[in-house]
Amino acid sequence: MTRYQHLATLLAQRIEQGLYQGGERLPSVRTLSTEHGVSISTVQQAYHLLEEKQLITPQPRSGYFVTPRKAAPPVPAISRPAQRPVEITQWGSVLELINARLEEDMLQLGSGMPDISQPTIKPLWKVMSRLAQKQDLRMLNYDNIYGVPALREQVARLAIDSGCQLSADEIVITTGCHEALSVSIRSVCQPGDIIAVESPTFHGTMQTLHGFGIKVIEIPTDCETGISLEALELALDQWPIKAVVVVPNCNNPLGFVMPDNRKRGLLALAQRFDIAIIEDDVYGELVYDYPRPITIKSLDQDGRVMLCSSFSKVLAPGLRVGWVAPGRYLDRVIHMKYIGTGSTATQMQMTVAEFIRLGHYQPHLRRMRAHYQRNLDIFTHWVRHYFPCGICVTRPQGGFLMWIELPEAFDSVRLNRELRECNIQISVGSLFSAAGKYRNCLRLNYALPFNPQTERALAILGAAVERAMECCMPAIPAAAELPEKSEGGTAVNQ
Amino acid sequence: MTRYQHLATLLAQRIEQGLYQGGERLPSVRTLSTEHGVSISTVQQAYHLLEEKQLITPQPRSGYFVTPRKAAPPVPAISRPAQRPVEITQWGSVLELINARLEEDMLQLGSGMPDISQPTIKPLWKVMSRLAQKQDLRMLNYDNIYGVPALREQVARLAIDSGCQLSADEIVITTGCHEALSVSIRSVCQPGDIIAVESPTFHGTMQTLHGFGIKVIEIPTDCETGISLEALELALDQWPIKAVVVVPNCNNPLGFVMPDNRKRGLLALAQRFDIAIIEDDVYGELVYDYPRPITIKSLDQDGRVMLCSSFSKVLAPGLRVGWVAPGRYLDRVIHMKYIGTGSTATQMQMTVAEFIRLGHYQPHLRRMRAHYQRNLDIFTHWVRHYFPCGICVTRPQGGFLMWIELPEAFDSVRLNRELRECNIQISVGSLFSAAGKYRNCLRLNYALPFNPQTERALAILGAAVERAMECCMPAIPAAAELPEKSEGGTAVNQ
Repeated sequence: MTRYQHLATLLAQRIEQGLYQGGERLPSVRTLSTEHGVSISTVQQAYHLLEEKQLITPQPRSGYFVTPRKAAPPVPAISRPAQRPVEITQWGSVLELINARLEEDMLQLGSGMPDISQPTIKPLWKVMSRLAQKQDLRMLNYDNIYGVPALREQVARLAIDSGCQLSADEIVITTGCHEALSVSIRSVCQPGDIIAVESPTFHGTMQTLHGFGIKVIEIPTDCETGISLEALELALDQWPIKAVVVVPNCNNPLGFVMPDNRKRGLLALAQRFDIAIIEDDVYGELVYDYPRPITIKSLDQDGRVMLCSSFSKVLAPGLRVGWVAPGRYLDRVIHMKYIGTGSTATQMQMTVAEFIRLGHYQPHLRRMRAHYQRNLDIFTHWVRHYFPCGICVTRPQGGFLMWIELPEAFDSVRLNRELRECNIQISVGSLFSAAGKYRNCLRLNYALPFNPQTERALAILGAAVERAMECCMPAIPAAAELPEKSEGGTAVNQ
Repeated sequence: MTRYQHLATLLAQRIEQGLYQGGERLPSVRTLSTEHGVSISTVQQAYHLLEEKQLITPQPRSGYFVTPRKAAPPVPAISRPAQRPVEITQWGSVLELINARLEEDMLQLGSGMPDISQPTIKPLWKVMSRLAQKQDLRMLNYDNIYGVPALREQVARLAIDSGCQLSADEIVITTGCHEALSVSIRSVCQPGDIIAVESPTFHGTMQTLHGFGIKVIEIPTDCETGISLEALELALDQWPIKAVVVVPNCNNPLGFVMPDNRKRGLLALAQRFDIAIIEDDVYGELVYDYPRPITIKSLDQDGRVMLCSSFSKVLAPGLRVGWVAPGRYLDRVIHMKYIGTGSTATQMQMTVAEFIRLGHYQPHLRRMRAHYQRNLDIFTHWVRHYFPCGICVTRPQGGFLMWIELPEAFDSVRLNRELRECNIQISVGSLFSAAGKYRNCLRLNYALPFNPQTERALAILGAAVERAMECCMPAIPAAAELPEKSEGGTAVNQ
């Protein structure tokens, strides 16, 4: 850490601890320079950094002031979904979310889109172009249905970081993590079967389960430690559950990393009840702390964990290169892949394999981790600044998704409709529950570029939330004020 | 047609009609030159062309002789599958076929792989490389789930040739035709439903139906006019059939083009019984006669036809760019696509769109049509030459697949096992039937390069067939000779 970064961290801590209050004037550049025995320019650089993070605001001819802010909002409490299997619907709302991608001027606060504009991704273009120039006929041929061997080897190597000892033969390349999840689910379930999921659960997974006629049982999930093992055990006792789908690392939408002992506990439960674990690790590489957390797969002795991931969040989703390490279900997975799509596009696989082989992956990953962590700081600051009191906000440990919980009676579906007129789109919480829960929640993406347009969108969103919250406060009868609120929109958390 | 091509066609006709017999000496170059009033070099060019097609053979210092040949084998009779819904299995054999692709030195006579080595495909590499150099961020982004607009527009334009008036909005891009078929089937069927198919039917379609728990009823199919409308009507009367899957243009595996009036008849039946038609047109562009045949979709008034196709057979399968025009089932198809894979890889879509936009598609298509037609001539000649009498062979009107029917008791599964030791792989007929019929049939690919290695493979294959046929002739008790022959291996055609 350089001198000015060190100084900036120190000052940020003081602001965080309340030594400098919101609106208070900070010491002059000269004072600090003397006090800390550093140069004037070091202090100036430190102040610039804090200004960038929006912790302080310069005022011409007066110096720097602590940006006024509210106290950090609390994190949401553990979820309390219904403890019985339910059918999934919500396709209409998911389609709305997907179609919003087509509107070019729509600010997509609700998407799961990573930042693809960082310079460390540039070598990907060169690799692509060089491969095309080579005119390797393998790129035009039907791929090996398991995937390009060179890529499977690279995936196996990368998996070592998450504690996995996998050989290339144990990996199947898929059309994004979406196909990985889809073939995994179909490999262990028939229509009518029951699968346990975290609550809330990524809407893509929910829709895949729905599409294959599978019922889900939503398990209470803590936004810092993950799925409740106690509640899961109870559910396993009561229902003929076939598998559990979890996102233990950089959970979507809650952002937690499940502690290792809980991962072990989950695996032990799966062994005891002889069910499969479908582990979605698509955001796992984007954890902010080094080294990255282990996967449940890395603890798996009897091949019951199907590890699903992709390069969509770390590199780019348009590549559609994902993978699954399906353990004992390999043959079933190949069958399901064959009947769904056949092989995966060859050239994108070769591109990713070459990008990794040439050593571009780790520098890019390091940059994206730092980038998203910095984004989280700014975004959290904006949320504190522009949103009203009385909300709960997650503290993601990786990735670029934030979950905001508003008061019980809040209707995010209605909010979303209003915001569309301002060309802002959010992910409404009810998509993340089969039973239509979390209507009072929303998921936001902080991978977006941090420019005045994004800040303005946050300001509009915050103001809209504030207005809506005023309408739905207990003093006013909810039924009269919120005619569009559905039965499913009951609150989940206290 | 140039002068020498005209002369060559005339001579080929005379040989076909038996005016010049096998082994007979042809008129000298000088004689023909005088007789037809053309130059010496024109006659020489015509003879070279016939030599290339292996219709004639030069003998040093003696002139040209008609290549000795047997009479053309007859085409197979109409199929007679069981007239009841059956479950599909055969996955093991399909997997064997898929895995054969992984063995580099295996001569894949059984694959559906097109020839990707022709010069007219070269601009694809340039387009790919140029797109990468442009660093268009759209290539890395999640694609519109419907597909890249520029490509959907080009697909709509191309569809005019098959008589279709489609707008880009009616087209969904998929991960190959495989996904197009898969989402179409799932859009109109639930597990346990019944679908009618041609008999024989492409094993990929059969496996997709199997994978989704759908039963099939195999309808007798004529290898020159297609599915029997009379038998289909009977089946529709008897069973609650949800849809019919057909490959009416350049059928896989039979190679026929269904006459227009039968296409109309099929659509009328579908309307009367209110079922969907899933039309697989993946080989339709590769018909040998210009203009290309119409699709059933082009006749469709009420959106019940789901037209599935891809660029896999015309350009290259490794691109994994297919499409479906699902008519009234559009919303369902998008849902099924979302739950299966999400969007399709962006860059390959943009590459294909640009290849077409720059005018490279039609010249390539013209070349491939002529190329496969020429290949068919050579291949048919080799089959006549190296195979024993008593076989039936299809006369494909397009594409690059040939279907050979051997005597009833013949076991192609056993033949395939033997051939694998010679590094030759065929498609066994039983894969093309849910009821395990067509064990006495095989499908061959004539898109392979025509070199001595391919000819040698045909010779080995022919000799193996001959040996096997000797073993399975009625005189010898089949049970004793063919211990591995299964129950399903009964003959279908007379």
